[in-house]
Amino acid sequence: MTVQINCDMGEGFGLYTLGDDRGLMPYVDIANVACGFHASDPTIMRHTVRLAKEAGVRVGAHPSLPDLQGFGRREMKIAPAELTALILYQVGALAGFLKAEGMTLNHVKPHGALYGMAARQESIAGAICDVAEVFGVPLMGMRGTLHEEVCRQRGIPLIAEFYVDLDYSGAGDLLITQTHAARDPEQCAARALRAIENQRVQAVDGSDLPVNAESFCIHSDTPNAVQIAQAVVHTLGAHLAPKPGRVTPT
Amino acid sequence: MTVQINCDMGEGFGLYTLGDDRGLMPYVDIANVACGFHASDPTIMRHTVRLAKEAGVRVGAHPSLPDLQGFGRREMKIAPAELTALILYQVGALAGFLKAEGMTLNHVKPHGALYGMAARQESIAGAICDVAEVFGVPLMGMRGTLHEEVCRQRGIPLIAEFYVDLDYSGAGDLLITQTHAARDPEQCAARALRAIENQRVQAVDGSDLPVNAESFCIHSDTPNAVQIAQAVVHTLGAHLAPKPGRVTPT
Amino acid sequence: MTVQINCDMGEGFGLYTLGDDRGLMPYVDIANVACGFHASDPTIMRHTVRLAKEAGVRVGAHPSLPDLQGFGRREMKIAPAELTALILYQVGALAGFLKAEGMTLNHVKPHGALYGMAARQESIAGAICDVAEVFGVPLMGMRGTLHEEVCRQRGIPLIAEFYVDLDYSGAGDLLITQTHAARDPEQCAARALRAIENQRVQAVDGSDLPVNAESFCIHSDTPNAVQIAQAVVHTLGAHLAPKPGRVTPT
Amino acid sequence: MTVQINCDMGEGFGLYTLGDDRGLMPYVDIANVACGFHASDPTIMRHTVRLAKEAGVRVGAHPSLPDLQGFGRREMKIAPAELTALILYQVGALAGFLKAEGMTLNHVKPHGALYGMAARQESIAGAICDVAEVFGVPLMGMRGTLHEEVCRQRGIPLIAEFYVDLDYSGAGDLLITQTHAARDPEQCAARALRAIENQRVQAVDGSDLPVNAESFCIHSDTPNAVQIAQAVVHTLGAHLAPKPGRVTPT
Repeated sequence: MTVQINCDMGEGFGLYTLGDDRGLMPYVDIANVACGFHASDPTIMRHTVRLAKEAGVRVGAHPSLPDLQGFGRREMKIAPAELTALILYQVGALAGFLKAEGMTLNHVKPHGALYGMAARQESIAGAICDVAEVFGVPLMGMRGTLHEEVCRQRGIPLIAEFYVDLDYSGAGDLLITQTHAARDPEQCAARALRAIENQRVQAVDGSDLPVNAESFCIHSDTPNAVQIAQAVVHTLGAHLAPKPGRVTPT
Repeated sequence: MTVQINCDMGEGFGLYTLGDDRGLMPYVDIANVACGFHASDPTIMRHTVRLAKEAGVRVGAHPSLPDLQGFGRREMKIAPAELTALILYQVGALAGFLKAEGMTLNHVKPHGALYGMAARQESIAGAICDVAEVFGVPLMGMRGTLHEEVCRQRGIPLIAEFYVDLDYSGAGDLLITQTHAARDPEQCAARALRAIENQRVQAVDGSDLPVNAESFCIHSDTPNAVQIAQAVVHTLGAHLAPKPGRVTPT
Repeated sequence: MTVQINCDMGEGFGLYTLGDDRGLMPYVDIANVACGFHASDPTIMRHTVRLAKEAGVRVGAHPSLPDLQGFGRREMKIAPAELTALILYQVGALAGFLKAEGMTLNHVKPHGALYGMAARQESIAGAICDVAEVFGVPLMGMRGTLHEEVCRQRGIPLIAEFYVDLDYSGAGDLLITQTHAARDPEQCAARALRAIENQRVQAVDGSDLPVNAESFCIHSDTPNAVQIAQAVVHTLGAHLAPKPGRVTPT
Repeated sequence: MTVQINCDMGEGFGLYTLGDDRGLMPYVDIANVACGFHASDPTIMRHTVRLAKEAGVRVGAHPSLPDLQGFGRREMKIAPAELTALILYQVGALAGFLKAEGMTLNHVKPHGALYGMAARQESIAGAICDVAEVFGVPLMGMRGTLHEEVCRQRGIPLIAEFYVDLDYSGAGDLLITQTHAARDPEQCAARALRAIENQRVQAVDGSDLPVNAESFCIHSDTPNAVQIAQAVVHTLGAHLAPKPGRVTPT
């Protein structure tokens, strides 16, 4: 069994940059590209899609609650039908940039607060699945949450992911923070290796949790994301799915 | 020769409504649907596309400069590459709603200030054509302007339109106003009939201009747009392209 | 004892209008003016403040969560310090328009979801009180909620209000709806009269609740708001605080 | 004669940062604080005003065209009355944050494209002066442009500034760029010294232009802005206006 590395990308806005997307592309299999609601704008989306194409990286949509100032990390009460429309808008917009480059959409992965809400609320997970269905693509999310349950009910494939650079609570919940501090690259790599070889991860309370994932996520807005990606790719080695042009740091 | 009626639609926002789209659909062949940059939001876009589907109305994208407060009616200096990206984003978003309904995109028609800028600046017309090309659809615009010239150069079909409810200057320029006052429906209908039978229209300075168009536009935000549409449809009669389910008022 | 009529105003946006502010001004004592986050824009704010000045109407700020598309009627999770800043921004902006007209700020009244959140969460009420304190003005809100409790703790005067055009639950909670349907003006007026003479109102479940308020609110976005205002002013008569230039319909 | 150093500050947005405001404050006399239309948000505005207060830096408003994605660097066609309202909104919002800190507004300085438009179009300069008048503060701008002319006509004091880190054309126009590249700090300092001692600056075409300014501007979004500020403060020495707590690097 092999894993793929996915990374949230294209999260700048206007003249603001966030993350070294160009630096990360060689180490990544799948880019989750921001769609303008928590970050990004049309110029950045186009640029990010082109970067991914050059690097042989597949592109999924990374839609969000409409909250640019809060980077999509603040929960909002939105009716499911309205949410379906908001996500359809964003995924459609990204699909336009893919069409322009002759690429196809790989999957949908909700961002930030929307990701967490979908893990816990069936109607929110359902709204995201509505859009995955329209585009005929899998959802990227977490096993053991409503991401998995709703996908199963609706017959939508799930790309299950594990976070090498975020903490989990003892209950297995992802601890999503407003900003991401630098992480020790070797620790992230060791965590990734243990996740794939032993299928376990240590939670913040010391308890040991099962891991069951085929894609490992690295956040591009962690300050040393490129170093983390390099360490993970180097350490995982043959556990990684083959990717044309992947750079394996030594 | 027959003409079609096109109408700018879906121009509400949030709980604000603008135009009686439901009332207009029976009289219209083509809806130019706002994409969220001068008006509309994802919920309204979805609703408008569904209204069009029910009424057998084809849907084109009506992208704009990014100016919700100004309803896209204020010119902005935007670099062509940035503009291409802005339009690609909007048209892609609309295409997502069409895909969800099993419909296809009919054309792209720039809105407001963008329409006027594209008529006069080659690089702006080119940016819109970039997107028409990606989606393989015609541009809707005006003959005798750079809309026509740039389409011709690039081999993109033009759907030429005539405005039954806006004035033209003696030089043939469309006089785009910030808001639209009510118009006499019978005058609009007479204007439409003369445009198709004599291919002439009277400009505001009294001069008589040639008309060369296959689609006639009615603005949904004119206060009495439904009455205008009814009068035009009634008067044009057999000059109109056949449309399943068209209601011809008597 | 007399009451005053307050009304949420200036709730259009760009070329969208909402409510007949000009029609309502003669019947109103206090305008709660939207500050651009759930509705309004600078041009409308300036215009609304001028309308109020002409009509001898005092002006308070009506700040909201940042949610133009949702008209501030969707709850968001915002940290109190961030909320204080958001409200300070909005109230400051309105104070600029008042300064330009030689007027002073009368009070702060939170809008929509923010109003409800502040009634139930101490930190939210506290964030609004922070701003009322900076400007040295009362909070407008509801007795029997944290509006009252937090104002009391901090020594900030409360202008307690009663809604003549919204329903209350049996528990005394205001039932805030996404849009407001027309109401029978005579019923609203009778409700207002009973509220002032008997200090009681009937809840939706039939139970009878105490009313303890010195300001009665009429929503400008109820379709027949002017008729409601006329009926209320006519019926309340001498119960209303004197206002120079008030028009009392007969 | 002495000069003051002014700096455009608070130009981050959400979790995006731009410029090292904390690092710059010790070298600066006046901060032009962004008001949320080209950059900044309420949380950042509050933080920036507090940073300025701590450092004994006076604060002016730095309003912009409404264009967050374009950082206010794209011209827009806006009617003067609408522009007055847009600026009043922004300056009022900033004044709220100053009021909360017991500070007063020092001046108004238009940002980016608005700055350039006001230099060339009388009605735009007039719209900014309308707001300076409401707040009873000077305009910060450039001599030899309509900034100066309109201020003179209206009896509004002008704080004339010179840019140590931007180029001038041979005609004396400021060459405003979309992003700012790093500059050699010693060259900027030498330029500043020559501007104050000889009152001359060399334009990009080699011609020598007169300088007539009492405030020198440093952009916080130039990558090495702190180094530039240190070099300028070090070199200008006694030419700088006294400031309590100013750090003079050696």
